[in-house]
Amino acid sequence: MCELLGMSANVPTDICFSFTGLIQRGGKTGPHRDGWGITFYEGKGFRTFKDPAPSSQSKIAELVTSYPIKSCAVVSHIRQANRGGISLENTHPFTREIWGRYWTFAHNGQLSGFESLDTGHFKPVGDTDSEKAFCWLLNELFKHYPQQPDNMCEVFDFIASRCDRLRALGVYNMLFSDGDYVMAYCTNNLHWITRRAPFGQASLIDQEMTVDFHEQTTPNDVVTVIATQPLTNNECWHKMAEGEYCVFHFGEVYCHNHTSVS
Amino acid sequence: MCELLGMSANVPTDICFSFTGLIQRGGKTGPHRDGWGITFYEGKGFRTFKDPAPSSQSKIAELVTSYPIKSCAVVSHIRQANRGGISLENTHPFTREIWGRYWTFAHNGQLSGFESLDTGHFKPVGDTDSEKAFCWLLNELFKHYPQQPDNMCEVFDFIASRCDRLRALGVYNMLFSDGDYVMAYCTNNLHWITRRAPFGQASLIDQEMTVDFHEQTTPNDVVTVIATQPLTNNECWHKMAEGEYCVFHFGEVYCHNHTSVS
Repeated sequence: MCELLGMSANVPTDICFSFTGLIQRGGKTGPHRDGWGITFYEGKGFRTFKDPAPSSQSKIAELVTSYPIKSCAVVSHIRQANRGGISLENTHPFTREIWGRYWTFAHNGQLSGFESLDTGHFKPVGDTDSEKAFCWLLNELFKHYPQQPDNMCEVFDFIASRCDRLRALGVYNMLFSDGDYVMAYCTNNLHWITRRAPFGQASLIDQEMTVDFHEQTTPNDVVTVIATQPLTNNECWHKMAEGEYCVFHFGEVYCHNHTSVS
Repeated sequence: MCELLGMSANVPTDICFSFTGLIQRGGKTGPHRDGWGITFYEGKGFRTFKDPAPSSQSKIAELVTSYPIKSCAVVSHIRQANRGGISLENTHPFTREIWGRYWTFAHNGQLSGFESLDTGHFKPVGDTDSEKAFCWLLNELFKHYPQQPDNMCEVFDFIASRCDRLRALGVYNMLFSDGDYVMAYCTNNLHWITRRAPFGQASLIDQEMTVDFHEQTTPNDVVTVIATQPLTNNECWHKMAEGEYCVFHFGEVYCHNHTSVS
């Protein structure tokens, strides 16, 4: 299994605090030794840092925590390999273009019978179930919507219907983003929290570190963090249900399929 | 105009020396203040570092020079914007998948009448002539070769024929790589050099720095560097002619269209 981390915010925000917690799980407080990656959006462009080395020992991970890049949308992943060898091309997140936008994908879980998925002209480069699922999803999107429709809620509902099919093949927790929207789809392990004024203090579970968000934010900031497991032990995280999806747009819930989300 | 830098080597080699020379031209010894980027391959995977900030002032460029990543294929670019604003999505190199491989592209020059090029399902994300040309090239490749053929010389000859068409629209110097092959196509400014045993010393033009390759290499190493202008002042660089292309494969010339290349 792997761990996912995502962020959606209404102002460019640095994710150093959450990322510091996450990378401890890459070989230190967690068993996810088989690589890590993080994608930051800046407008329609993005930067990805990744490494097949364990995140807790990675020089590039150190760089990312010491050189804060501010972004409104982030997708990150640390890996414990099950399908596919340990290599750069098998390291999440994966990014491809569709509709003139870069879409970024990370997956936690394991699928069976994924080999026969038809990915059309989106050919996987590596040999993971995850990249294959990503390519299949893009091909389904491209077949259904050759052009990007105006109604993005309809698009995310369609994506969720295809995620349901992938969930039938095994465990499928997913983050998916184009830099404006961040979609979370859950099989069994995904939590999120939205922080807004009045901001308080938060303490990391995986490392002795406390941050006072009040000192780092303005009263209008809205920041949602999505993670496989809660990263802090003094805040209340929403636990997502099986088959639930939730799409965030600049920090706020944009659309979802469960009435329990308000 | 921009500056290109490429490398093809038969053993993973760090490009720090050449990159140190190049980034001085990003706002210091040259006028290329509008961003820079570098893509390193590692097998079928790649890493890209890029920044819309001038390379001579970029923290990320500093990181790249201080944290040598060894690679057999590198494509790099520093930008002086002509078409398209200064933004991350307009910063070269650009990378897209075709035939289950990641292909990376960087362009130096300026094109007219590029707006009508048909890019098929490869939609540009930014608004540069370069990314549009890249997408058009991939679409031409995809239409002509839905699957990757065995004869790659034939493929590169086809690519060169399409580069000739782009050259009819203006200045088109290009680097193009999938991590195994590095192709250089010239309109007016492109030089290359192959270093092999016996290795000597080289001195950078743009910064007081000399390296003794003999100390850093083994007798079997073969390393080709391609650059808009020669980066060293005590070595003999091949100047490419208009319409000339040359493809390198792990350091050695693989195919080309000019008999003067031996």
